[in-house]
Amino acid sequence: MTDAMTAYDRLIAHVRQTTALDQVSGVLMWDQEVVMPPDGAAQRAEQAAALKTAAHERKTDPLIADWLAALDGAELPAAAARNVALISRAHARATRVPAALAGALAHAASTGWGVWVAARAANRFADFAPTLERMVALKREHAAAMAAPGQGLYDALLDEFEPGMTGAVLMPMLEGLRAPLSELRAAIAASGRQMPTPRGHFPAAAQLALSKTVATAFGYRLSAGRIDLTVHPFCVGSGKDVRITTRVDEDDPLGCLFSVIHEVGHAVYNQNMPEATLLEPAGQYASMGVHESQSRMLENQIGRSAAFSEWLAPHFRESFGDTGLADADALYRALNRVETGCIRTEADEVHYNLHILLRTRLEADLIEGRLEVSDLEEAWNDAFQRDFGVPVPDAARGVLQDTHWSQGLFGYFPTYSLGNIYAAELFAAMRAEIPGIDGLIAEGDFGPLTDWLTEKVHARAATVPPEQIVAQAIGRAPGPEALVSYLQAKFGALYGI
Amino acid sequence: MTDAMTAYDRLIAHVRQTTALDQVSGVLMWDQEVVMPPDGAAQRAEQAAALKTAAHERKTDPLIADWLAALDGAELPAAAARNVALISRAHARATRVPAALAGALAHAASTGWGVWVAARAANRFADFAPTLERMVALKREHAAAMAAPGQGLYDALLDEFEPGMTGAVLMPMLEGLRAPLSELRAAIAASGRQMPTPRGHFPAAAQLALSKTVATAFGYRLSAGRIDLTVHPFCVGSGKDVRITTRVDEDDPLGCLFSVIHEVGHAVYNQNMPEATLLEPAGQYASMGVHESQSRMLENQIGRSAAFSEWLAPHFRESFGDTGLADADALYRALNRVETGCIRTEADEVHYNLHILLRTRLEADLIEGRLEVSDLEEAWNDAFQRDFGVPVPDAARGVLQDTHWSQGLFGYFPTYSLGNIYAAELFAAMRAEIPGIDGLIAEGDFGPLTDWLTEKVHARAATVPPEQIVAQAIGRAPGPEALVSYLQAKFGALYGI
Repeated sequence: MTDAMTAYDRLIAHVRQTTALDQVSGVLMWDQEVVMPPDGAAQRAEQAAALKTAAHERKTDPLIADWLAALDGAELPAAAARNVALISRAHARATRVPAALAGALAHAASTGWGVWVAARAANRFADFAPTLERMVALKREHAAAMAAPGQGLYDALLDEFEPGMTGAVLMPMLEGLRAPLSELRAAIAASGRQMPTPRGHFPAAAQLALSKTVATAFGYRLSAGRIDLTVHPFCVGSGKDVRITTRVDEDDPLGCLFSVIHEVGHAVYNQNMPEATLLEPAGQYASMGVHESQSRMLENQIGRSAAFSEWLAPHFRESFGDTGLADADALYRALNRVETGCIRTEADEVHYNLHILLRTRLEADLIEGRLEVSDLEEAWNDAFQRDFGVPVPDAARGVLQDTHWSQGLFGYFPTYSLGNIYAAELFAAMRAEIPGIDGLIAEGDFGPLTDWLTEKVHARAATVPPEQIVAQAIGRAPGPEALVSYLQAKFGALYGI
Repeated sequence: MTDAMTAYDRLIAHVRQTTALDQVSGVLMWDQEVVMPPDGAAQRAEQAAALKTAAHERKTDPLIADWLAALDGAELPAAAARNVALISRAHARATRVPAALAGALAHAASTGWGVWVAARAANRFADFAPTLERMVALKREHAAAMAAPGQGLYDALLDEFEPGMTGAVLMPMLEGLRAPLSELRAAIAASGRQMPTPRGHFPAAAQLALSKTVATAFGYRLSAGRIDLTVHPFCVGSGKDVRITTRVDEDDPLGCLFSVIHEVGHAVYNQNMPEATLLEPAGQYASMGVHESQSRMLENQIGRSAAFSEWLAPHFRESFGDTGLADADALYRALNRVETGCIRTEADEVHYNLHILLRTRLEADLIEGRLEVSDLEEAWNDAFQRDFGVPVPDAARGVLQDTHWSQGLFGYFPTYSLGNIYAAELFAAMRAEIPGIDGLIAEGDFGPLTDWLTEKVHARAATVPPEQIVAQAIGRAPGPEALVSYLQAKFGALYGI
């Protein structure tokens, strides 16, 4: 026991420092997207690569294997045992990746972003294709290196974002959405009913002020965070330094606001994890899907609810004056327009998961070698026409719209839909457990909701596997049905179908 | 040759990554001072420590000794040989310091700052003395450990900031300033002449806009930099990402502007080093003294010149309206007020080096064991009375005013005066080589000046030792005479003496 604890103390001290280095990578990323001078990209790539290499060297330090061997079969307290299990899993995956490949991936991710930005601005996939081709090759190499015996290439990547998830579980869950969502989409289109749109000019300062009000109402602490502007909104950091970004369109008051609500869902999760274990493996977020469930629930189940519109309407009027939306009900309807569009990040709740289905299938095909990058644009356009019933107008609104692949994020897209599925499951459970929840939301009293989420999700961090977080909160294994029921009930009523 | 080049390639690749990690420490520092949320400090300390530890592990990697041994006596290209010499020097110094001593120094530096802050607030040297005593003892041990055979203790510390500099060269250079500056100071006081002060309210936005105009005129590229606000101005970064900060006092239009000019001197040096070698030892700045020469020349020889006032005056009027300064000559005189004060950071060109002389003598005596900490306050006060002709009012405005010693920075102060000496030497040489230089400055055409500095200083980086950078630019070894002549001519005319 004493020997085992000595080995454990050394192991966890080593891992805590590595986690701190990984947090520094987050600071570099924020810096790059928010404040870095435009000419700094190449230099930043070197810095990011050096940092990733240093962290990788720590993650593959032979001492870890020694410590893990010393701990093999040892009786440890539960919290320590969970840390050891997570370290062992990460160590097995990391040691399978050669340092040169890890460095090449970091470098490609950092330079890839700049190439993608330029290609999207030029609206030419050909400008990005060679960079993406190199990235796909590296990710295939990466997947092959990390894969456990018998694990498929795409599953090996998926596992990075959603530990334990496999295509065999994921694909049926996603496919369970396809038919009901396609039917709902068609019925809405056939209803001929139009939701209203807020009209006017919406100054950036007023949008940001309202966003800040809403963010803090949802429990986001600005003493431990900040809100900045970027091309693509994101959330980064943990504990006492969790930053979000958003973007502003002065013709549209909803994009900025709902980006912020979404990122605040992530941020509140990160701010509410237990402080003492922020540098330990069991103190991290459970999975990307669980993370996304927190942002989606705030954004959709709560943020686009009739009850929330009651609370938001007076703030909205105070911020923007007369927008043509007479009351809370008009605002509620404006928040729930359903419209077929090309851009994932602008998609409504009905279309969103269809965007994810498309990307998940394509990226799985790229990684599994069933699709070449040279055929990707055409494959994207064909799939889009089939699933959405309209053509893609150009590359910027098609295959070039998302940054993920430029950064090497393959296996990440499906976690968005997992987040939607988990959010619907968690919200249904929360409704059943919090009496008068609509009244609380309508009054802007989000404390009981955040407390419930903190107890069931945030505070648990990664102390148990992700599927257990959700299963224990809802009392059974999650599936697509809660999401389908929620969407059918809500949009059925709104569109009279 | 092939073996040597292989060892060299491995060594330089290792060192490049370490340098990139050190650059990341700079990004963290900037983040902490400029944008970090207030609650983030404790977490940031863990991150910064983890990064420092990772860099330190690389710097003391036993492989470095192996590579250096393989390169011993090898014939290398000049650029590679210079890198090897610099790496060898840094490695020898680092490995001579026992880990326990390095740990004790780091601990003393981190606790020392807090004790100094409290002692300065309480205005009591006795509160700081025991901490300083411990720090002096540790620095003496540190110096003894690092010293090459036959090297004195203070020289061993000086060498860290000004490679190759020794007290035997430094002290006569500094002492050469004492008599002429004391006489100049006395003559100015006796002249009874007063310089004007700009009057009015100076809005922060107008100050920052003017600062940006001046910064870019001096060749600072904002595409590879940015200007932000902090409590203490600084410059950080290299190559394509060099950031400066400043502070604004709306009652004083000169503090912000001249802070920016000073930091731009540092920044332009950092931006103009050769891009290809930014991660190599020979591609770094030559020394603290040479770095400071670039900031001081922009700030003083150029920024406070009559010619610069010609260019600045219309911009100044446009920014602030009527400030009571009728013309360029009045502005010139306002930029050159001479006034005896106790605070080094507020000192004018005539007094500044007297502050440094005082500190350099005292810290050399402490390190060499000729002065006890218990006698330091009295020694400071006596020396100040002698050199400045007025008494020190209290400890906070005397021996406790600077943070340097609390952090273990001994041997750093003299680099400020070396910067002034080098600046005067370089500016005199530049005047002789650039015809019509005053006309260029008066027209705001700083390109030829920056080009000269880039060729003679910036582009050379650390390819030769610092004393050679200056000596080769001016054609002989540098001395105090150019600075003395410059100050006598300028202030003699201004004060009619």
